[in-house]
Amino acid sequence: MSSTLVTNIRSLVTNDPALGTGPLGILEGAAVVLDGDRVGWVGPSAQAPATDEVYDADGRAALPGFVDSHSHLLFGGDRTDEFHARMSGRPYTAGGIRTTVAATREASDEELGRNLARYLAEARRQGTTTLETKSGYGLTPEQEARALRVAAAHTDEVTYMGAHIVAPEYADDPAGYVDLVTGPMLEACAPHARWIDVFCERGAFDGDQARAILTAGRERGLTPRIHANQLSHGPGVQLAVELGAASADHCTHLGDADVDALSQTADTVATLLPGCEFSTRAVYPDARRLLDAGATVALSTDCNPGSSFTSSMPFCVAIAVREMGMTPDEAVWSATAGGARALRRTDIGRVTPGGYADLALLDAPSHVHLAYRPGVPLVTEVWRRGVPLRP
Amino acid sequence: MSSTLVTNIRSLVTNDPALGTGPLGILEGAAVVLDGDRVGWVGPSAQAPATDEVYDADGRAALPGFVDSHSHLLFGGDRTDEFHARMSGRPYTAGGIRTTVAATREASDEELGRNLARYLAEARRQGTTTLETKSGYGLTPEQEARALRVAAAHTDEVTYMGAHIVAPEYADDPAGYVDLVTGPMLEACAPHARWIDVFCERGAFDGDQARAILTAGRERGLTPRIHANQLSHGPGVQLAVELGAASADHCTHLGDADVDALSQTADTVATLLPGCEFSTRAVYPDARRLLDAGATVALSTDCNPGSSFTSSMPFCVAIAVREMGMTPDEAVWSATAGGARALRRTDIGRVTPGGYADLALLDAPSHVHLAYRPGVPLVTEVWRRGVPLRP
Repeated sequence: MSSTLVTNIRSLVTNDPALGTGPLGILEGAAVVLDGDRVGWVGPSAQAPATDEVYDADGRAALPGFVDSHSHLLFGGDRTDEFHARMSGRPYTAGGIRTTVAATREASDEELGRNLARYLAEARRQGTTTLETKSGYGLTPEQEARALRVAAAHTDEVTYMGAHIVAPEYADDPAGYVDLVTGPMLEACAPHARWIDVFCERGAFDGDQARAILTAGRERGLTPRIHANQLSHGPGVQLAVELGAASADHCTHLGDADVDALSQTADTVATLLPGCEFSTRAVYPDARRLLDAGATVALSTDCNPGSSFTSSMPFCVAIAVREMGMTPDEAVWSATAGGARALRRTDIGRVTPGGYADLALLDAPSHVHLAYRPGVPLVTEVWRRGVPLRP
Repeated sequence: MSSTLVTNIRSLVTNDPALGTGPLGILEGAAVVLDGDRVGWVGPSAQAPATDEVYDADGRAALPGFVDSHSHLLFGGDRTDEFHARMSGRPYTAGGIRTTVAATREASDEELGRNLARYLAEARRQGTTTLETKSGYGLTPEQEARALRVAAAHTDEVTYMGAHIVAPEYADDPAGYVDLVTGPMLEACAPHARWIDVFCERGAFDGDQARAILTAGRERGLTPRIHANQLSHGPGVQLAVELGAASADHCTHLGDADVDALSQTADTVATLLPGCEFSTRAVYPDARRLLDAGATVALSTDCNPGSSFTSSMPFCVAIAVREMGMTPDEAVWSATAGGARALRRTDIGRVTPGGYADLALLDAPSHVHLAYRPGVPLVTEVWRRGVPLRP
């Protein structure tokens, strides 16, 4: 097992208040020892131990690799024309999500895997070292299960989301589709996933259906997460807290009771997905309100070809600061430690001895530059499980 | 002179309606011949002539290199703490622009040049092949002139902006400062610049002062451009049109008469700078209103350490589509051909025989992805004057 010293870091976000200043545990003039796939040591550069190799960060800033806890990257096809029409004020009647379902069903396993690997690599270049992804464009037992098998070859954080929309074949029998999702589809999918998710929204699945689906998943060993309160007020957030879901995702339309519920639990994180509101010209979720109430907030890309085709966590940080009332420090925490909380992981999202050696280096003196320099590709090096992107 | 064929471009924006479809002159299945620093030929891949070298674009999209017609990159120091405080709701009493003036005056020529070169290279990696930049943080004849000398070593598009703010030494004698800017400072600076600019705004220079400054510059061979109507309604836009300025920049607060004036001239471009509104949480300019009235619109970064520290033209395109009512096609035109118009250039901003060989290649099938995939670093190769970024 080889060890590498990353030294001369001007400002290191550890997310471990015991290691540095403030909630981000910031250490100036820092060094990190990567021991194989784990962090072996964190401290002042001047006190660093000897290692096999040395990487000079040359005064750049570093932070934990981003934890992107919500994406939909098992898809085929493209929806450029739909986006182009929407943003040009032209009518566009074809398909929406059903376009992606049709294209995904036609894609081979190899095509799905190649597509996922492409966006994983793209995210990695932007500092993401853990990425959750979901099924939900197959909507048959065979299609959903093969999507999850493909996903599991690329990431540990795999979510079964047969309940994304009611499959076209069940348009007249949504109850029958819920039976499928909680029955044969769940049986086929559960071995390949860690999580179960449902789109709880008018036109998708109501509160009772969502409860049935998540409960069935939980009995089969999957932990719930929910697409909640995205397009309208609804029962999603309350259900997430009731079931102890790891995350309530979107949280765009919240009542006071929703905010109270999220602020009174340590189990359910509010995961905000500003790329979605950006690309649909929708109103942004109010992160400030959630934070002031005491809720735990994560940021994620929601990367998918329909409503949010960004893979950029730095972009989400910048938008969260511009539009959602987050401070730069809060946004960076939510994009790293917050994502880890939403995935119930303590081994990622911070730079601390024993945790995974996931580290992003910025061409900037401070993590603040992720918001101060929007759109600029600042990530210059990324270690994931101790392996550098650009060795 | 060596020639290179860039072939197998899935979709090429030429900005020459004679070469392809629509206002962007889009050509599918295209190829471009780069003859030295110029474009030699544009057409279908299948009809491309023989060349010394061949570059396979592998189905990616291409467009003219971005023309960033407004930046302030001759500066010293850093204003991270000011941004951090502003975006964290904390009071911050120090300096603003005066902080940068003090740091710039202290910087050596080498430091100024290294800093400019760094941001030029960063912009280039994001597809920018022409970048205007300004003085305006020196505010003495010697300081302004040396900043312009440094700039001229790096770019052809250099603007004298002694009239950025009234120099601290003249706080009690603004008329005296205008005399300096139109007298000894102009004499020292004019040999090193193509343009003259003024910040026409309450607290900076009023309409009469701005007219005197721009008129003096014009008599000395410099062409006017104006920071107009950024923070409030004012005389800037009217003055720009009256003087035949190449560009009225910002245009955030416009009355109907301003929009009319801009729509009735072919000489003065409205240059919108959304990075500034992004980073100051201000209201965005209304590009739709200007376009519907018939004005010519350019997009630019306004890259500077105080109010807009982005160097990313793709980011500006995405924000213009999200926030300013531009279609993806309009935003891409404004970031390329529009910028060229704002610099009164016909040899850049389009891909057409005889023009400069400035070409950006995207890891995407269409220019629409610049808005569809916000924040993602899509630019994978950039030729500037025929020279590739990654040979």
